Amino acid sequence: MASNTFGKLFAVTTFGESHGPAIGCVIDGCPPGLAIAPEDFAGDLSRRATGKSRHTSQRREADEVEILSGVYEGRTTGTPIGLLIRNTDARSKDYDAIAAQFRPGHADYTYWHKYGIRDPRGGGRSSARETTMRVAAGVIARKWLAERHGVRIQGFVSQIGERRLECVPERIDALGDVEGNPFFWPDAAQVPALEAAMDALRKSGESAGARVEVIAEGVPPGWGEPVYGKLDAELAAALMGINAAKGVEIGAGFESVAQPGSVHRDRMDPGGFASNHAGGVLGGISSGQAVRCSVAFKPTSSLRLPVAGLDVDGQVVDIVTTGRHDPCVGIRAVPICEAMVALVLMDQALRHRAQCGDVGAMSPRVPG
Amino acid sequence: MASNTFGKLFAVTTFGESHGPAIGCVIDGCPPGLAIAPEDFAGDLSRRATGKSRHTSQRREADEVEILSGVYEGRTTGTPIGLLIRNTDARSKDYDAIAAQFRPGHADYTYWHKYGIRDPRGGGRSSARETTMRVAAGVIARKWLAERHGVRIQGFVSQIGERRLECVPERIDALGDVEGNPFFWPDAAQVPALEAAMDALRKSGESAGARVEVIAEGVPPGWGEPVYGKLDAELAAALMGINAAKGVEIGAGFESVAQPGSVHRDRMDPGGFASNHAGGVLGGISSGQAVRCSVAFKPTSSLRLPVAGLDVDGQVVDIVTTGRHDPCVGIRAVPICEAMVALVLMDQALRHRAQCGDVGAMSPRVPG
Amino acid sequence: MASNTFGKLFAVTTFGESHGPAIGCVIDGCPPGLAIAPEDFAGDLSRRATGKSRHTSQRREADEVEILSGVYEGRTTGTPIGLLIRNTDARSKDYDAIAAQFRPGHADYTYWHKYGIRDPRGGGRSSARETTMRVAAGVIARKWLAERHGVRIQGFVSQIGERRLECVPERIDALGDVEGNPFFWPDAAQVPALEAAMDALRKSGESAGARVEVIAEGVPPGWGEPVYGKLDAELAAALMGINAAKGVEIGAGFESVAQPGSVHRDRMDPGGFASNHAGGVLGGISSGQAVRCSVAFKPTSSLRLPVAGLDVDGQVVDIVTTGRHDPCVGIRAVPICEAMVALVLMDQALRHRAQCGDVGAMSPRVPG
Amino acid sequence: MASNTFGKLFAVTTFGESHGPAIGCVIDGCPPGLAIAPEDFAGDLSRRATGKSRHTSQRREADEVEILSGVYEGRTTGTPIGLLIRNTDARSKDYDAIAAQFRPGHADYTYWHKYGIRDPRGGGRSSARETTMRVAAGVIARKWLAERHGVRIQGFVSQIGERRLECVPERIDALGDVEGNPFFWPDAAQVPALEAAMDALRKSGESAGARVEVIAEGVPPGWGEPVYGKLDAELAAALMGINAAKGVEIGAGFESVAQPGSVHRDRMDPGGFASNHAGGVLGGISSGQAVRCSVAFKPTSSLRLPVAGLDVDGQVVDIVTTGRHDPCVGIRAVPICEAMVALVLMDQALRHRAQCGDVGAMSPRVPG
Repeated sequence: MASNTFGKLFAVTTFGESHGPAIGCVIDGCPPGLAIAPEDFAGDLSRRATGKSRHTSQRREADEVEILSGVYEGRTTGTPIGLLIRNTDARSKDYDAIAAQFRPGHADYTYWHKYGIRDPRGGGRSSARETTMRVAAGVIARKWLAERHGVRIQGFVSQIGERRLECVPERIDALGDVEGNPFFWPDAAQVPALEAAMDALRKSGESAGARVEVIAEGVPPGWGEPVYGKLDAELAAALMGINAAKGVEIGAGFESVAQPGSVHRDRMDPGGFASNHAGGVLGGISSGQAVRCSVAFKPTSSLRLPVAGLDVDGQVVDIVTTGRHDPCVGIRAVPICEAMVALVLMDQALRHRAQCGDVGAMSPRVPG
Repeated sequence: MASNTFGKLFAVTTFGESHGPAIGCVIDGCPPGLAIAPEDFAGDLSRRATGKSRHTSQRREADEVEILSGVYEGRTTGTPIGLLIRNTDARSKDYDAIAAQFRPGHADYTYWHKYGIRDPRGGGRSSARETTMRVAAGVIARKWLAERHGVRIQGFVSQIGERRLECVPERIDALGDVEGNPFFWPDAAQVPALEAAMDALRKSGESAGARVEVIAEGVPPGWGEPVYGKLDAELAAALMGINAAKGVEIGAGFESVAQPGSVHRDRMDPGGFASNHAGGVLGGISSGQAVRCSVAFKPTSSLRLPVAGLDVDGQVVDIVTTGRHDPCVGIRAVPICEAMVALVLMDQALRHRAQCGDVGAMSPRVPG
Repeated sequence: MASNTFGKLFAVTTFGESHGPAIGCVIDGCPPGLAIAPEDFAGDLSRRATGKSRHTSQRREADEVEILSGVYEGRTTGTPIGLLIRNTDARSKDYDAIAAQFRPGHADYTYWHKYGIRDPRGGGRSSARETTMRVAAGVIARKWLAERHGVRIQGFVSQIGERRLECVPERIDALGDVEGNPFFWPDAAQVPALEAAMDALRKSGESAGARVEVIAEGVPPGWGEPVYGKLDAELAAALMGINAAKGVEIGAGFESVAQPGSVHRDRMDPGGFASNHAGGVLGGISSGQAVRCSVAFKPTSSLRLPVAGLDVDGQVVDIVTTGRHDPCVGIRAVPICEAMVALVLMDQALRHRAQCGDVGAMSPRVPG
Repeated sequence: MASNTFGKLFAVTTFGESHGPAIGCVIDGCPPGLAIAPEDFAGDLSRRATGKSRHTSQRREADEVEILSGVYEGRTTGTPIGLLIRNTDARSKDYDAIAAQFRPGHADYTYWHKYGIRDPRGGGRSSARETTMRVAAGVIARKWLAERHGVRIQGFVSQIGERRLECVPERIDALGDVEGNPFFWPDAAQVPALEAAMDALRKSGESAGARVEVIAEGVPPGWGEPVYGKLDAELAAALMGINAAKGVEIGAGFESVAQPGSVHRDRMDPGGFASNHAGGVLGGISSGQAVRCSVAFKPTSSLRLPVAGLDVDGQVVDIVTTGRHDPCVGIRAVPICEAMVALVLMDQALRHRAQCGDVGAMSPRVPG
């Protein structure tokens, strides 16, 4: 119920501000017996981290995860897992100038109206710093999903600004060089051009949006709950809830509007489905096909280019944002999107076995 | 928590199958003192109903709402409101032929895998019949939102198949003829062409998708909860959870990917925001601007054109759907989308005043 | 979250007022494949019903359960089960006289202060009529618990007014004549005296309290969740939430205060526990022993003996309650207590298998 | 929903084991603008702490609270408040001997059956160490309740073993010396005898139970939600969920069973209620009277007196507990009970204003 908690059974509660002493999370409901070590987190946190290439914000956080509870002798015990990361490179002075101003396109204005008070340092709670803990929690979900069900989850970028991937892969095996460049871009041939475009963007002071896609393979049929806990609905919430997200698609998404029904519906052969316009979800329940989602990320509004905005007294002021920002925040959203997909699947997996049993899903007609 | 319940504080629980004896809902958490009468439901239910023009399914349901509880002498009492609608025009024989088959693009296959049992009559629980109760619950939410906060919510169709509205309005006042034609199409001049296109579609046995947009005006700044109860995230879940939805956008949506940051961010003047690419939500919290969402609906998969599918024994069979179906289900989704937006706003309104008080939202710096 | 919903995974939402058209409930999350028929409800509803002996209220309700959804060809489908019972013997005129008065010891006063409006007919929502639906939902829970886990649940009365059962049984097999008399009293020899005492009580216009105890056998070890979802904590809420309940005990309850630690702690032999002061729960988790609870029910405040009370204008008035009431409401609480225990166990059973798997509970050290 | 979270709107999630690196909590949903400083926690944490007199466990924890988030410039911001306390005096070696044994009366056996794995150090998650965070969270709740509504909450001990307080006060003003002795005992004259009894108990190796009572004054009428979110039901869950609790009463509790109805029901005069057998709750909603609860705590099972128990291989072994334990754990439960009452009231206060508004509760007939 609490709004800083994600998930019903695999419930992740996060806390922490961008420039506070620490960020952290509590993961409640994790199945017992799963092997977890501090070093498990390094990979995905590093993929999300800033300061690793010239194309991201230059804030450099060690992102060392301390496991505070819930793990004994290297295995989860079923009790809540507390994770903590100290903030070490928060430069609050960068933000002092705009503490009394509302940056356009930011949550400054709305937090102030909602709460009557806000922590302006680095965007406070509304900073993407919070997503670090989503990625950390996602690591645990992904591990269980992989070990127990063989689920694999991989994200990539298919559009940056106006530049699109020519052919969007529908399977993880087809994702090519995705982990070999700073843009999570499957097609290695396009990377040099992207590097140049990003350099130009950074120099211009502008920013660009991105489209991130995620494929989850190995999801068994039967996950998802009608009618308000549908798998696709929860994926939509999970992905739209990431900072800067403005749109979410499942499968063919908005393209399905122009598809004839005879084309959109995925024919079924003895070997399975002949296409995957549905994106692996039918009636809110996984079909056994790859689950495919796509997310639109807006260009960051934190630019050093001045813009007219308001201060807390309602006066129009010229606002310049001088903090360290990503010219294209969508790129680093890839591991966050993967994590959110993992958290949704993990939660649905547990909910499914609650109602239908461990075996039920696979053997029709056996009461759960 | 329960998956057939929508909302945390204004909690709507629905039940009922397409061809069962009745559908119904329980609305828990409604503020006391709101005037509600059975006839309040007629308007929106009629907008959603089938059988009213030749462009929708010919199933004709009276959709008479019986108020079973929670209203005394015409006013809500604060206790749960039970609503019931008897099904009167369910023709289950239409479906007997495919009880042992999985219709491609439908939930037949996934329900079967999830539960090992399913009610095949009219799609059972997965039928859009369930959305009738969403609309009924939405009527109550809309009434409270209008009376208490002056919120207005209006949906429309901006695309059917490949046919798009030329200029998509951003304000309710600009929606023109939207309620004057069976397509919720703002531009009256295009309606004759749409009529012809729909007639051709129906004759061909094909189906088309639709894009539905919703505008909510009068939403005060401050509604929405960081970080997992964001207004836009909950709108995304609410809308993606409607039958046949495949994509959701807030504000500029996927177009924001290609917008430069300096364009996307909405400048603030003393008179307010100069544009609304954000769609009325910043950092997951309403900004006071119009909340704008867009939803992609796939073409229905229930066609009389045959398609290869599986039966329960895993054999490939030719499947023909002969029931009564809409050639473009997205059109009737307009009042459903409005209702879901209303339910999200209502729930967020109550959650906001729980934490920040009735007055808090409007008077910054006063402790809640 | 909604306050008229009980349970997290086996979620029962009730609605309806004492003198409204109907009462009902929606049961969400029921495992699929369970055989349920309308006649399954008759037994427990009859045990709870009024009008069956001279010792209860003379209201006579048919209590015919209509299954509105969630059951297909006699088996649960996993979708929400809607149950409806029409009110047929509501005599609202009995209550007209006190519509503007607050009956002492009743919810009239508090509903009025909470909501500013109330349905005074028969106590409205605060009437014990609502508990009919708890019993109905409990029937389904008990059936699943019995079929799947062999759980048996039986309640009895161990005290009426000052009259106590001499020896309180700790096992169901020892409950003797409990179902053979209108008082759920295990010791048949005491029944004639109870009959006489109840007759005298009724004639005097007074009322008496009761202590109800419930034993649940066959509960496997491992159900219950630390630290705020403890089995005993949820039993306490479930039982204290029944109308007129004022106290709840688990196992030795308040007697444990005066027990030395060496006596209270239950020694473990190879054959199991040597005693059961714990009441089958250790650390909030079932131990495999019989779960034992005890509930105190106050005497009803609805007496024909006049009492000073307030009217809605704050004036002191003499209040006489002339409706049909039980002289000892606690007696009929037996099936309600059993139902609430069943609902708690059912919900915990599903939550346990969500986190630990179907097999996990029984085979330590196997990761869930 | 998560089982380590307490509360729906003022949601407290705790984590941490007795001998892990730290314990902590996240408080979500706190109203913004409340002044909170680290030193606010010292008072209640010290009242709960061990090692302060010879009558408690000799474990000495600094219990220094670090505020990790949610507070900016000394005031709550409305975002989640993370609190952390490092464990500094955990002596795990004390427990090594019994890592493979199940201490009777403890959660060892049930955790092992539930999860197949457990952290045996100091009882792990089942240790009362966890309650430190409840007290910390309760500090914030109490402060808001006091500042906003004038609510005062005070607990005391009314029975230790067989020794009872002669006259149990019903008002906070009558609690006399309760804060002046290590037993939270209102009657100073009895304290020397208690000291002697506790010394004898400690020397004997035995333990004793306690009855703790809590009075909350200033609770306005209207808090509590029918029918499954009743104030008394939630108090019962909150208090029964404290380690070692075996019984909970509201108002007259089990005594009400033997009270005639004409005595139990609290007469209403123009000046208010003439008595308070109800304990401040009618129909699950606060009546404006003092809320009174009573909790039974069992004697601790951790004795140095040997007892027959099982080891993980099912063999009977003699178990001696040599760790540092309280001879009467119930005494230190006083601030924990107060905290749980505060958390329940806080959550209900927010839920009430969500549905009925800030003003609604006090002015009947004004729609919320």
